Amino acid sequence: MSDYHTLIIGAGSGGITVAAGVAGFGKKVALVERKHVGGDCTNVGCVPSKTLIHLVKQADARSPAEILAMVRERRTALRDEEHHDVANMKNVELIMAEASFVDAHTVALTLPDGTSKQVTAGHIVIAAGSKPILIPIDGLPEEKTLTNESLFDLDDLPEHLVIVGAGIIGSEMAFAFRKLGANVSLVDLAPRVLSVLEPDVSELMQKRMQDAGINLYLNAKGSRFDDTTNTLHLDQQGTDVALNNVSKVLLAIGRKPALESLKLEQAGVKATKRGIETTSFGRTNVKHIFAIGDVNPASAFTHSANAQGRRVVPKITLPWLPMWGKEPVYPSATFTEPEVAQVGPPLAKLHERYHPALIKTYKLALKETDRGYTQYLREEDGFVLMHATRLTGKLLSATIVAPEASEMIPVLTLAIRNNLTLYALANLVFPYPVLSEAIKKSASSFVFETLPNIPQELFAYLRYRWAAPEKTPS
Amino acid sequence: MSDYHTLIIGAGSGGITVAAGVAGFGKKVALVERKHVGGDCTNVGCVPSKTLIHLVKQADARSPAEILAMVRERRTALRDEEHHDVANMKNVELIMAEASFVDAHTVALTLPDGTSKQVTAGHIVIAAGSKPILIPIDGLPEEKTLTNESLFDLDDLPEHLVIVGAGIIGSEMAFAFRKLGANVSLVDLAPRVLSVLEPDVSELMQKRMQDAGINLYLNAKGSRFDDTTNTLHLDQQGTDVALNNVSKVLLAIGRKPALESLKLEQAGVKATKRGIETTSFGRTNVKHIFAIGDVNPASAFTHSANAQGRRVVPKITLPWLPMWGKEPVYPSATFTEPEVAQVGPPLAKLHERYHPALIKTYKLALKETDRGYTQYLREEDGFVLMHATRLTGKLLSATIVAPEASEMIPVLTLAIRNNLTLYALANLVFPYPVLSEAIKKSASSFVFETLPNIPQELFAYLRYRWAAPEKTPS
Repeated sequence: MSDYHTLIIGAGSGGITVAAGVAGFGKKVALVERKHVGGDCTNVGCVPSKTLIHLVKQADARSPAEILAMVRERRTALRDEEHHDVANMKNVELIMAEASFVDAHTVALTLPDGTSKQVTAGHIVIAAGSKPILIPIDGLPEEKTLTNESLFDLDDLPEHLVIVGAGIIGSEMAFAFRKLGANVSLVDLAPRVLSVLEPDVSELMQKRMQDAGINLYLNAKGSRFDDTTNTLHLDQQGTDVALNNVSKVLLAIGRKPALESLKLEQAGVKATKRGIETTSFGRTNVKHIFAIGDVNPASAFTHSANAQGRRVVPKITLPWLPMWGKEPVYPSATFTEPEVAQVGPPLAKLHERYHPALIKTYKLALKETDRGYTQYLREEDGFVLMHATRLTGKLLSATIVAPEASEMIPVLTLAIRNNLTLYALANLVFPYPVLSEAIKKSASSFVFETLPNIPQELFAYLRYRWAAPEKTPS
Repeated sequence: MSDYHTLIIGAGSGGITVAAGVAGFGKKVALVERKHVGGDCTNVGCVPSKTLIHLVKQADARSPAEILAMVRERRTALRDEEHHDVANMKNVELIMAEASFVDAHTVALTLPDGTSKQVTAGHIVIAAGSKPILIPIDGLPEEKTLTNESLFDLDDLPEHLVIVGAGIIGSEMAFAFRKLGANVSLVDLAPRVLSVLEPDVSELMQKRMQDAGINLYLNAKGSRFDDTTNTLHLDQQGTDVALNNVSKVLLAIGRKPALESLKLEQAGVKATKRGIETTSFGRTNVKHIFAIGDVNPASAFTHSANAQGRRVVPKITLPWLPMWGKEPVYPSATFTEPEVAQVGPPLAKLHERYHPALIKTYKLALKETDRGYTQYLREEDGFVLMHATRLTGKLLSATIVAPEASEMIPVLTLAIRNNLTLYALANLVFPYPVLSEAIKKSASSFVFETLPNIPQELFAYLRYRWAAPEKTPS
């Protein structure tokens, strides 16, 4: 007999979801957390960052230091509430400890007082999250280095904040700290910002960043820091660029699964640099061990960790229940100005799977809608971009750039998830006037192009349906 | 042979849609407009009202007179552009004239110079729109009376604006003019504002109106106006209430189909006070005559006029083509603060169709979502309310009250249109953190309540599925 029916490593979004779910079936659960209940999202991720983004948008008289203090207060209050909720969850034992595998059913727990004990469990769920990737910059002292883990502990605004990495976190924080009043320099090795998203997004966002007064250095990396003059030297394609009077450097290059201390090999769980590969129901190569959230390469978001957690619960509690259904469709949102929301692969990835002639692309600026007109929108205020299979109109992926893009994407997630087509979206009635009408207008363009040319479209569809893509998967 | 393949009465949203569609098939079309191309929406409806609402939300130094001038300018520019587009549409003859039926295929056109002529058409589409309902208030002079048709011609802010009718237009304009700086009094005969929507909406909105400093008089009607003292006397359930220093009175009681001058009887087209009843494809009792938009009781919105127009086009141009499919699902949006968006019937109407025990209702305040937390939302900032069939989870109707509710409703319109259930919405992944998560949370509550009680739910479902409703349809 095991000590616990299920032991979960990590009390973040995914871990809490599984704990609540399994405990709800009356099973004895151990939830092991090394640092803070709530995980990265509550403590050093979405919650403080979105609170900050919200507060800087308010036009009021608060000082940056006051705003930063409010963010911390909000974060800590939620952390305490979540800690309290989890600690009082029926059938769940919350254990503040560092976990590592002893064997496939045994985990060693190192408690805060340094003592350790071993416990056993019938099922183990690895939801240990991720850590920021640190690329050392020669000469940069630790007290001037920030990651998302230390960013929200800032007491006051850095006069000149350099952000290395123009991905989602880097871009969001560039807008937020610029709006707070900092001089912001944003550096990325790639030739464009937000390089995991569509190139159209990068182009628009770079313009918006320049309009906001964010200094952008692309094709560049930090080479060395001169601590006597506070100068960060960048290597921009061989040219030395000196950023002066640098107060802090935020490293936002990316994140890696937090696997080092877990001793996965003792349990026989296989992992790569990208994380622990699993079935679509989160099962690792060891049948009773699951991996969800940031340790799983299929997910890198709070909402996907949560969704994966929901899929693991029935696999653990009702193993006899046949389950099917493909993995959920995960949208993403970037809270820049404007926001970017996206679901499905960008065009470059679609080209690895399908022949380019099989894909039809529609892009419409929001200003071309009636709401865009009444709202005085400009070209750079956003667009809707959709890729669909020709003839069938199957929606493959979509990107929305709009002030509230994150609230507009669900209709497209639902469409992709349920195999609905551009025909269905063209027939959908939207209230008048809304920016989402750009979806309907784009879908209608597809219908108007396709219907009068059914024979040609059918011919092209049949020709390219099984044709090899031009690119090979990377 | 007829003069025209199709003649359309009214160049508003619906009429233009049909004109463009039929002309696109190479047919000769006459588009007859009495006043302005673009109809109510462009000229005296959504376009000026949404431009106004947008401009008053901008925190800048414009005076009310400047804002009102900008609204007019924007409206006139769009009107001119639409006039130009329609006048240059291939196969379409735009005729500025007043139309009335001579017989089922003949229409008399009275031109601006007073002359008139008769033309014939194979198909006639009535898209004549609506007019404000005027309830005379004893003693109220014409120059102090406004309707939506004259509201946007105001040169400056009325110091004290009384709005009679707290429906969609009345409520929207109450917020906008209050924000512009006017003293606003809102009067309605009903015991609640926005009485066509769910009572929960009225309750929240009344609180928000009071917070905004709008004076609310419910269960009240204008009884007489004293022009010497500018006092509007209300009859509030028998009590006389005097509103002093009234500058203007906006009548926003409702709209009625603009049928008077059409002489429908000459064509044999049947109509009631509510308008011209049609099939779901817009066909009247006379086979070749169609009616769409505000003259059709099934529609009262720009977007529904447009959707109806799209359904009429193939019926006219491809009559041999078999068509099916139920009428589209029409959402609505009210641009108050916060916005209200709604799709499907309110609960009271559902009770006319189904036994109450067959319906499960879920309501969640936005502040209960994580986004609501990071955005410091309060109870009165909004909610999601959904009604679904028990057991099956079929979504019957939904209301969202939220800052951007109009952009959040499409996912629920799509769900209703495609018979998707709360199970599907519970499984849908939303980006984190968004207010739309309230949809997922509500849907999840349904799933958690239903799954452990399948036998009881099935029993109740079978018992009430065909049970008579408690209310009889009104």
